[in-house]
Amino acid sequence: MTPLASWRPALARALHLNRALANARYFQLATVRADGRPANRTVVFRGFRLDTNQLMIISDRRAQKIAQLQQSPWAEICWYFPKTREQFRLSGRLSRIDQGNAELQHSDYCDFCQVWEKLSASAREQFYWPPPGQPHHESESPLAPPTDQEQPAENFTLLLFDPIEVDHLDLRSHPHVRHRYGCEAGQWSVEKLNP
Amino acid sequence: MTPLASWRPALARALHLNRALANARYFQLATVRADGRPANRTVVFRGFRLDTNQLMIISDRRAQKIAQLQQSPWAEICWYFPKTREQFRLSGRLSRIDQGNAELQHSDYCDFCQVWEKLSASAREQFYWPPPGQPHHESESPLAPPTDQEQPAENFTLLLFDPIEVDHLDLRSHPHVRHRYGCEAGQWSVEKLNP
Repeated sequence: MTPLASWRPALARALHLNRALANARYFQLATVRADGRPANRTVVFRGFRLDTNQLMIISDRRAQKIAQLQQSPWAEICWYFPKTREQFRLSGRLSRIDQGNAELQHSDYCDFCQVWEKLSASAREQFYWPPPGQPHHESESPLAPPTDQEQPAENFTLLLFDPIEVDHLDLRSHPHVRHRYGCEAGQWSVEKLNP
Repeated sequence: MTPLASWRPALARALHLNRALANARYFQLATVRADGRPANRTVVFRGFRLDTNQLMIISDRRAQKIAQLQQSPWAEICWYFPKTREQFRLSGRLSRIDQGNAELQHSDYCDFCQVWEKLSASAREQFYWPPPGQPHHESESPLAPPTDQEQPAENFTLLLFDPIEVDHLDLRSHPHVRHRYGCEAGQWSVEKLNP
């Protein structure tokens, strides 16, 4: 069992104080394309994986970010909390769990299924739509999702984001207050930076 | 004079409909670090440069993103509008205008000064603070900004973002609606994509 990282209380507090805003659970995930250019998109925070400091995100197996991760697992999350005017930047690596993982452990598969079970009907439906990011053909209608959705859709993918550096900027104070948390050999330390 | 790109009306509409939210003018800017990992941070939209499709952003000349741009000018903006539930992803190149540009043209310098003139006192002050992102020393207090601020601060930098691809996702419809605008030889075209 991994101990709670030292930046977790500050993030938990921001989540709590911004809980009235639905979009406070959205953040921007940057990855690097095969040609070396950055990519950046909004994703939904699906909670921390139990007993870890890993953030959970979901994706479609056919999405571009999955192909990008095969080139480079590095990503940076930028998470802005409008009500408390705080920003967290989390730098780390992404790994994935889907039904194509041959060496899937039992505990991984349980987490994977639990995230699927918590999804709304409209979130689940998207995994049955035509391939995302491909040219749209009017004739190609969304597939009707199966009535039995106990099993996760074939394209459903759970992404685990494992931070190694967290930069917390508080814009309410003047001058602003900035802390950087770094992880070495499983130990988190913190230092105060100039904003 | 560059004609208005075909994605500009959709973005102008989103800005108008979300105008009550201060943070609707913030977006996330992803760049690539020297080691190939992505970086991602929130910045403020400072408007379009007159007669162009370039988005204006400001930065401190000492900030990490300036060093990153010397390695690679490529960036991706992710701009989420909470009220209308729309996302714009803009991929393009960044260039900079600061007082170190030897070949600065008169029109560039005018735009540079105009953005400075529009800044609030607290936004200006930050350019006189100790170097951003460096370890903070309690003894090192922020410099008092000069009383005469007609000239832009030495560290003030104007960044110009020139998009070559824009991906517009509308999450209100069901299924979602997605369009990609691409620029070739100065001409913008649009196609509808699967969401």
